Amino acid sequence: MPVFDIDSDPTVVRNDPTFGSYKAWDLGGVAGLTQFGAYVEQLQPGAVTSLFHWHAEEDEFLLMLSGEMVLYEGENVTMIGPGQGAAFLAGDDTGHYLRNESQELATYLVVGTRSEKEVVTYPRHNRILRRDGDDRKLTDLAGEPAELSPYELVASGVASISGET
Amino acid sequence: MPVFDIDSDPTVVRNDPTFGSYKAWDLGGVAGLTQFGAYVEQLQPGAVTSLFHWHAEEDEFLLMLSGEMVLYEGENVTMIGPGQGAAFLAGDDTGHYLRNESQELATYLVVGTRSEKEVVTYPRHNRILRRDGDDRKLTDLAGEPAELSPYELVASGVASISGET
Repeated sequence: MPVFDIDSDPTVVRNDPTFGSYKAWDLGGVAGLTQFGAYVEQLQPGAVTSLFHWHAEEDEFLLMLSGEMVLYEGENVTMIGPGQGAAFLAGDDTGHYLRNESQELATYLVVGTRSEKEVVTYPRHNRILRRDGDDRKLTDLAGEPAELSPYELVASGVASISGET
Repeated sequence: MPVFDIDSDPTVVRNDPTFGSYKAWDLGGVAGLTQFGAYVEQLQPGAVTSLFHWHAEEDEFLLMLSGEMVLYEGENVTMIGPGQGAAFLAGDDTGHYLRNESQELATYLVVGTRSEKEVVTYPRHNRILRRDGDDRKLTDLAGEPAELSPYELVASGVASISGET
């Protein structure tokens, strides 16, 4: 068909002391989509979607289904609730992340193009991730090889989630 | 940002005696997305999403937000409700359309890749639409030029919505 159902078991479950608890349903993957990814994701209170970042190649789209999240985009802070959402255009270097700062679950749909090559920049964590097919290369912003990912930097206490020191 | 809100006025309103009443919010367009389209659409009871068709180039994804629709895909008939959805893979010639056969509004999100070129086949209405940028060419299944679109065939009573005679 393929028909999917978010009443099924999630395809990803993350319970992380730093980034919070998260479930995801890879609806696009279940269905066999290859041109874009489509996930329903659910954040427990306090959890973040990602670290502050932007994509060079892939458009990204997010629609709140239930609950609320705070969108941090550049210097802007916006609360979004059901029926509201945001889009992040490929190549826009503003940067963003979202956090569930409510006391309820936050559930949203996120769609992103699948490019063969991608460059993800984490400007506040001094990291750039270059992906070319299955090949991944991590550097700092100056292009020097880096060992720790931005998430490892935060988990180890070297940097904060917001990237502010 | 851009942030959108489906509490805003719809970008498309269609009230058609044949295909039913329909509203759409072009969230992706409002946000400036170019790699895929993202729409929230709402069908009144009795309305259809489209005629039975399939895409050669573009993946398509649909998630029910509220209400129910009947998915006609090939010879399969499936009811889908909130949190359920379907994906239609580029090049899969099964064909599909959906109809709101309930007494309530049906609201869903639909995402589709944006290809420069596309071929949309309406196998039950003897039509193929070829799009190349802004150029559109309509033929019958044998490749002969056709004047009336599949929707015009149905609106004029020459064919039925289901394509069955």
